[in-house]
Amino acid sequence: MAAEETKEAIWHGGDLAMAKALFPQAPKPWIDLSTGINPIPYPLPELPLSLWQRLPGKAEEAALLAAARKAYRIRAESGLVAAPGTQILIELLPRLVPAARVAVLGPTYGEHAPAWRKAGAEVREIADLADAGDANVLVLVNPNNPDGRIAPQQTLVALIGALAARGGLLVVDEAFADFAPGASLLPILPDGALVLRSFGKAYGLAGLRLGFAIGEPRLTEALQAMLGPWAVAGPALHVGAIALGDADWLSAAGEARAADSGRLDTLLGPYGRIVGGTVLYRLLETPHAAFLFEWLGRAGIYVRRFQHDPTRLRFGLPGDEAAWSRLAGALATV
Amino acid sequence: MAAEETKEAIWHGGDLAMAKALFPQAPKPWIDLSTGINPIPYPLPELPLSLWQRLPGKAEEAALLAAARKAYRIRAESGLVAAPGTQILIELLPRLVPAARVAVLGPTYGEHAPAWRKAGAEVREIADLADAGDANVLVLVNPNNPDGRIAPQQTLVALIGALAARGGLLVVDEAFADFAPGASLLPILPDGALVLRSFGKAYGLAGLRLGFAIGEPRLTEALQAMLGPWAVAGPALHVGAIALGDADWLSAAGEARAADSGRLDTLLGPYGRIVGGTVLYRLLETPHAAFLFEWLGRAGIYVRRFQHDPTRLRFGLPGDEAAWSRLAGALATV
Repeated sequence: MAAEETKEAIWHGGDLAMAKALFPQAPKPWIDLSTGINPIPYPLPELPLSLWQRLPGKAEEAALLAAARKAYRIRAESGLVAAPGTQILIELLPRLVPAARVAVLGPTYGEHAPAWRKAGAEVREIADLADAGDANVLVLVNPNNPDGRIAPQQTLVALIGALAARGGLLVVDEAFADFAPGASLLPILPDGALVLRSFGKAYGLAGLRLGFAIGEPRLTEALQAMLGPWAVAGPALHVGAIALGDADWLSAAGEARAADSGRLDTLLGPYGRIVGGTVLYRLLETPHAAFLFEWLGRAGIYVRRFQHDPTRLRFGLPGDEAAWSRLAGALATV
Repeated sequence: MAAEETKEAIWHGGDLAMAKALFPQAPKPWIDLSTGINPIPYPLPELPLSLWQRLPGKAEEAALLAAARKAYRIRAESGLVAAPGTQILIELLPRLVPAARVAVLGPTYGEHAPAWRKAGAEVREIADLADAGDANVLVLVNPNNPDGRIAPQQTLVALIGALAARGGLLVVDEAFADFAPGASLLPILPDGALVLRSFGKAYGLAGLRLGFAIGEPRLTEALQAMLGPWAVAGPALHVGAIALGDADWLSAAGEARAADSGRLDTLLGPYGRIVGGTVLYRLLETPHAAFLFEWLGRAGIYVRRFQHDPTRLRFGLPGDEAAWSRLAGALATV
């Protein structure tokens, strides 16, 4: 079990303990580029002690949901539920859709398929939306992780119609849509689709645990019933409401991260081909990916490799000049 | 729906917004005695920004679980899962036990029965453990909320045996056992029982959202699978590990709260009969309970009343001398 977990975590990224175990001699501090989390977080507001002491109140939750509706441009008709991170919604959603035949557009974020399998669904990975076949649930990440692929909105709307006609559901994980608002289905969300949004990535606060599901009220209410009251911590309600209400910060952060990702492309250019990404991560293709992973690991820089494709590495953004400089230095000596 | 929610919340306690709506003219600040949360919280340690930024790591979770095992005296054979509050475990547990006939020892915490009903179980409230009949799931809160009743350990062990013989399960919610460690089943927990522990009440940090389930590994692993990874926020893992490792604080807090609850009994004595409670709340019985609820509400003091029994009020502990003084003043003018 322990060995299994270790193997799993090594491939998942985001847990520096694993990088430390793989490269015990690496110089400190570790530079973690293994995630798509914004390295410059939303500045934490002051957190009154009462947020920690009291059960989260309905007023605080209502404020968060109102801010999310506005920030994500959610239709008044759509239901909305907040959760302690998107992951738990990914785990619970399959329990709402019995006996599903699921198609997951891949390669993509690795947690969708297993969640459906655990719930007894039959899951296929498809490379193209046109290959969904007789699936009654179709899952895609949009923009996709790790390649940044964005599905045309018209295609998605047509798919929702086709799925709905046979009682099915389109699940769209928009974890990386904050900086690509045009990709979001939310402003036009029809029945027959469920959208997931993650707070932690764009706002750089993944440890806070805050995510949302948006869709037909019968679905979001069923998710709410499984979570029960008070699932989201008081500090997360408070920080989320403030940050989601701060459109100026999001806009400035989007511009800054776009500049950073351009800088990263320039830095990585000589070592392979940038085949995709979003403003929070870039996907590098090179036959030397396995070597580069090791080389950077020995230099204390942790990037994301992929079990399904040994020719690709995903790079998150360095968060300060020291990190940029160490990355540049490590690459220069390859 | 909104009206329904309002009605529900008024009876639940713990949400001051509702007290404010009921008594808009009450003097400020509100004194919230409607919960059983320790009003003197564990002092928040410094929270490094990385706890907010990064996905919670396996090392942080392991540290929390190790501290919980020691603090709660959990057997090495028992499984243990951490969740963002006990409530979500209460919601998910019924999904592990299909087609249950459930007996809930009551009156008690109001969230157990509805969670089982939502999952399709047949639920009866029983007044005595001997009345469980053919139930295959028996739920009790121990010490009980609101009356503080503690079931003899021998009785519980015998019940577990009887339930297990027909493939059943005893669920013991030990939310208020931190200051009554002798009541806990954990040091001797046999198969066939699942125990819930809440971090927020004894440590006065309910907004943090942290709870645990302990029992047969097959059950705790199934709960873990429904929660998925990273369900508990980084700050909660960190604070929980430190606080649960601080046996001296818990012991001092237990003595101080016992003194407080004695002081509360003395203060309430002239207004009715103390019929139970724990060191975090006291249960007052009086034919004037409805009047007293209103009287205190008008004075800006929110206590817990009960739909099922209009002769009882539950009082949490005042958290400072100003609160004690306002409570004494409001009572003196009844």
